[in-house]
Order: sequence, then C-alpha cells, then structure tokens
Amino acid sequence: MRTLTVELGARSYPIHIGPGLLSDEKLLQGAVDAEQLLIVTNTTVAPLYLASVESAFSGRKLRSLVLPDGEEHKNIASFVRIIDELIAAGFHRDACIVALGGGVIGDLAGFAAAAFQRGIDFLQIPTTLLAQVDSSVGGKTAVNHPRAKNMIGAFHQPVAVIADTRTLATLPPRELAAGLAEVIKHGLIEDYAFFAWLEQGIDDLLAQDGEALTRAITRCCEIKAGIVAVDEREQGRRALLNFGHTFGHAIEALGGYGMWLHGEAIAIGMRMAADTSARLGLLDKRDSERVVDLLGRAGLPTTAQGLAVDEILDRMQLDKKAGRQGLRLVLLRALGEALLMPAPDESILREAIAAGLAGSPAAAR
Amino acid sequence: MRTLTVELGARSYPIHIGPGLLSDEKLLQGAVDAEQLLIVTNTTVAPLYLASVESAFSGRKLRSLVLPDGEEHKNIASFVRIIDELIAAGFHRDACIVALGGGVIGDLAGFAAAAFQRGIDFLQIPTTLLAQVDSSVGGKTAVNHPRAKNMIGAFHQPVAVIADTRTLATLPPRELAAGLAEVIKHGLIEDYAFFAWLEQGIDDLLAQDGEALTRAITRCCEIKAGIVAVDEREQGRRALLNFGHTFGHAIEALGGYGMWLHGEAIAIGMRMAADTSARLGLLDKRDSERVVDLLGRAGLPTTAQGLAVDEILDRMQLDKKAGRQGLRLVLLRALGEALLMPAPDESILREAIAAGLAGSPAAAR
Repeated sequence: MRTLTVELGARSYPIHIGPGLLSDEKLLQGAVDAEQLLIVTNTTVAPLYLASVESAFSGRKLRSLVLPDGEEHKNIASFVRIIDELIAAGFHRDACIVALGGGVIGDLAGFAAAAFQRGIDFLQIPTTLLAQVDSSVGGKTAVNHPRAKNMIGAFHQPVAVIADTRTLATLPPRELAAGLAEVIKHGLIEDYAFFAWLEQGIDDLLAQDGEALTRAITRCCEIKAGIVAVDEREQGRRALLNFGHTFGHAIEALGGYGMWLHGEAIAIGMRMAADTSARLGLLDKRDSERVVDLLGRAGLPTTAQGLAVDEILDRMQLDKKAGRQGLRLVLLRALGEALLMPAPDESILREAIAAGLAGSPAAAR
Repeated sequence: MRTLTVELGARSYPIHIGPGLLSDEKLLQGAVDAEQLLIVTNTTVAPLYLASVESAFSGRKLRSLVLPDGEEHKNIASFVRIIDELIAAGFHRDACIVALGGGVIGDLAGFAAAAFQRGIDFLQIPTTLLAQVDSSVGGKTAVNHPRAKNMIGAFHQPVAVIADTRTLATLPPRELAAGLAEVIKHGLIEDYAFFAWLEQGIDDLLAQDGEALTRAITRCCEIKAGIVAVDEREQGRRALLNFGHTFGHAIEALGGYGMWLHGEAIAIGMRMAADTSARLGLLDKRDSERVVDLLGRAGLPTTAQGLAVDEILDRMQLDKKAGRQGLRLVLLRALGEALLMPAPDESILREAIAAGLAGSPAAAR
C-alpha cells in the first residue's frame, strides 16, 4: 500500500493506494470517525463491493443507498434522494457519507456531503480508474445541469481516499480506457518522463499489471495533490488539470451525457487542445501526433462524428472556465508543460475542432 | 452611514448600515466587481426597491428574477430556478448574485451563489429587520427540506452587506416584531447592557425611530461579526447564536413554515430556553420573566397553541445542532451570558415546553 497526503492544513487527508484495500477492515474503520454512515453506491458496484464495506462498518449505525448507474443520474434529483435518505435515517451533522463507486458517485455523494447541514464528512472509495486518478482527489464535487456539466457543486474535501486497485479487474475495458485518458493528461500537463513511461507501459496498464497500475495511479495522485495543495479553489494553477476539458465537456454535453464516457470525451478534447497548440506553433506537430497515438493505443476515441463545429464552439462559451476575459484554454507548450491562456483566434479553433470531428484519426492528422 | 467589517482574512467584507443607502448608487456600484449580475428578489420587495437597484447597476449585464414571497418557497425548486436563470443568461463564474429581500431571499440566493459553478460572488441587500441583524451577516446559506429547516446549504460569505434602514418603513408591523426577536437574542446571549437598553428603547424601535434602529442594528451586527470572526463554521462559540432556535425550529416546522414567521417561532423558543435555564437554576426566575416581558412588549408571541409537547421534542431531535453527544441546547446563565450544554433531563424540557404551549403568558409563568 502506498499512502500520500493532500496537504491542505486542517483539511489535509490521506490517499491510500494498493491491491485488496477493501478487505482491510482496520484501514476502513480507521478512516472514519463518525458513528452514523450512509454508503452511497450504484447498481453496478453494489453487488461487487458493498458487502465488504458494510462488513467493515457493521459496528456503526449504517445505511446504504443504491442509485442507478450512469452520468445521466448525476443530477439534482439524485442529490435530493441522498439528502432524503440522510433525513429519513435521522442522521446528524457528524454523520459521514461513504462514496463507493466511480466519479459520478463521488461527485454526487460529495456534493450531498458538502450541502447536508452545510457540510458533513465523506470518505471516497473510488472503484474506477478515472475516479482513482482524478475525480476522487481534490475536493471538487458537483452535479450536472441539463444544459451544462458540473454547474452545481462545492469544494469539499474528503476525510480520506481509499483506492483499491483490484476493483479495476471488474471494470469494463471501455471504462479502463476512459480512466487512462486522465492518466495521460497528468503526464501531458506536468511530467514528460511519466508521459514517456506511459508510451512504453500502456500495454501493461491495459493488461492490468498490478505494479504498473499502482505506479500510474500513485504518480497521478501525487501530481494532482501537489497542484491542489497550492491552489485548492482553482484560482490559478489548478486550471491546468482541465486540459482537454473545455472541448471535452462540450462534446460530452452535446452527446447528452450518455453517448460518451467522460474520459472518452476528454480524449477527443485533449486531441483538439494539442492540435490547437500545434497550430499556434506552441507545440511541435510531431508531439501533438504522439498525443493522438498514445490515446489511440489506450483504446480511446480521438474523433467525434455527428457533431458540428458551431455547436461545439457555442457550448464551449458556456463552460465554467469561461470568465470575464472570455474563453480561456489550457494548451501545451511541450509534452509535460501546460499553460492557461485566452482562446486563440476563432479560425484556429475551428480548424482544430474540425480535425477532431473528421474521418479517421489518420486523415485528421 | 456606519460601516463594520467582518474579519475573515481573505473573505473579510464590509457591512454598511444607514438610512437611504439604496439611493447611493456609488456605494452599490463599488460593492460589486462583477460585470454580470443577477438580482434575486420577491414579489413583495420588487415593486418597492428593485428599480433603484437596477438603476445603480444599469451599466452592467443585468437580469432580475422575482420569486414568490414566503418561507415555503425557500426550497430546492426555487434554488433550481435561480441556477436555471444564471445558465439561461449565459453567466460565468465571475458573475454576482444580488440578494434583495429578507432572510428567505438571502439564504436562498446565497446558497445558489455558493453552488453555482462551485461558488460565485453575492451581495446582500437585506430589506427586513431580521435579515439586517441576523441572516445577512455571517455567510450561512440554506434551503429547507420538507422535514427540517436549513438542512441543505453552505457557508458562503457575501462580498458586502448593504442595510438601508429606510426599507423598514415598508415592513408590516408583524415582520418588524419578528426582527426584534433576533435583536433581543443578541442582547440575551452576549450583552446585558444592550438588553437593558432594549427594555428602555423598545417603543422607539417599534415607532421606527431612525437613530434607535441604526443603533440596534449596528450593535447586533457587531456582536454577530465578532462571533463569526472567531468561529466561522460553528465549531464552538457561533452555536450561541442559535439561542432559542432548537425549540423555535421545531415550532416553525410543525406549523408548516407558513403559520409562524421565523422570528415569532424563535421568540417562543427563547421563552422556552430561558424557562429551561430558570428551571435548571442557571438563571434567576425573575430574569426569565424579563425575557418574556420584553418579547411581549415587542409584539411577539411567547406561547404556541395547538402543538403537543411530544411532537416538539421529536422534532428537536432532528435539529442540525443535535450531534453525536445527543441534543445540545443554548441556555442562559445570566441575561447577556449564554452557554451551550447537553440537553437536561427530559422531564425539565417537557415542563418548559408545556409552559410555552399553555394558555396566556401570565398563566405560563
């Protein structure tokens, strides 16, 4: 087991990473002080892991809520269901929510924990690669609005994160690949050596080699924890973690949140962002091709069919990251080095988006 | 105009108090940096004051949302209406919500500001006495759950509070009295001299004497700002501001949030809390009678008919302030001196509640 700490003063918390952690009852018990626990999970994860988490906490006042699976349920209605459950249980402000599942469960249960009685504890037990490397770390919680993703939420740090790498064995290959999109992102924005290691090791990760997975997850959490420690509320540096997300969120929303997994949309978005960087002369064109290659080898889509350039551009204007200065984008000035800057001339954006919508990856290059 | 500062480091903000401030366009303009503003108000306040606030901000991108008036609209549905409006306007994360109205508008609009894109600015323009002395100061925001008040919310500080005492001239007498309940509370928990001044000056306040109002509002804001500065998130001292609220919230909820104004329910709750303090021998019995007297002279109810002791006790167990140690109550050990302690023996609570439910105030003494 590897343990990192996210350094946030009084709100610091540990991230534990390793195989079989869900069977470690002492680890689970020690992570939560509260006597009242509500486990929030979904219909896919519950049959696999709910029993072992319930068993670890069997000495406490325990309720479990099993929600339907899917990004389309990350909404205000599900949020209200969690609150209703807490109230029906008579839970107090020193209760704790345990988020057992992927990013949807973590974001949703985390926002409920942030808002119930203006904030109670929550424990993240991410069971997808995406959640283990990204969404469970850093305290961003949210639900979607029908018109835009993550529009309603809070910054609310968990009391701990427990990432059991063995849960990835039950992950469908498509979900594993979606998580790899965020893994690759961490290399692209901050650590060239890690990106290069991924180019060598991507097949090991796809084959679920335990050591490779632990190394990749740990490195991503280290990178993210370091960024969050200096910029918890995304006033500056933390925005770099949104590399590919302005394009990606637009693609995801236009697909109705059901067509693309988050990581898939982000893969296409990263391709567009790398391409934009290359067209601006910031990034070597061959390096932007390395990005597309690695995403493809990870089993990720790098083009989106059936969407129009205009609708993506319109939707990008709605993105949370847009501000008074207009739309801003995270771009690359090298592999492993990102920067936040005002969106370039629209004609360049249009070209980069069009390339990511057209034909095969090869043709688009 | 008097100006205080709530000292909260980077989140410090000013409270401006005085007559005619809503006509001071420069003050309003200077209070908000944002270019995009959504004014949230209600059908009662809009005809009176919306035009002058809109006029002050006419140079910016401005939308106004007029909600129905009443505590029963402080719910998730109204919260979603505000978010929908922000999204329909295409507003970004550097937009600002202006809360123009009483405590319901402030709490509701404040929670929307806390949650939209995980937090945008908001300006409090309280137009009721209750909001000017209490709910607009300190950053507590929330909506009600059908089963309990303020169950869903956030701590989110405004960028400024502008309290125009002239708005109280249009306040129905019942609402003015409800605000006086919180004014009296500030004296009871922290400042005996202020409580004694209120005993002398209550008629001036009821007659809307400008100087007396400014003095009372300023003193309450000073007391509250001092408490919030040392305990923003209610880990300790801030709980004293809940004097009367555990009883009061139960009474308010059992009336369906439509029967009693918040301040009226709190008045009855303060009577029960003072009575409990006296029955425990903490507070002199004559002092608890002074509390009932002053509340009555302020035009406030001090008894609730039609409720049963059991239902109030049950509902109190649901209160946010209840925690792992069981129910805790704010009681008085003197006029001007409050303390937080575990709820006393149930028989004493039952007697104090029963006295506050029975017959006339005189009989209950």
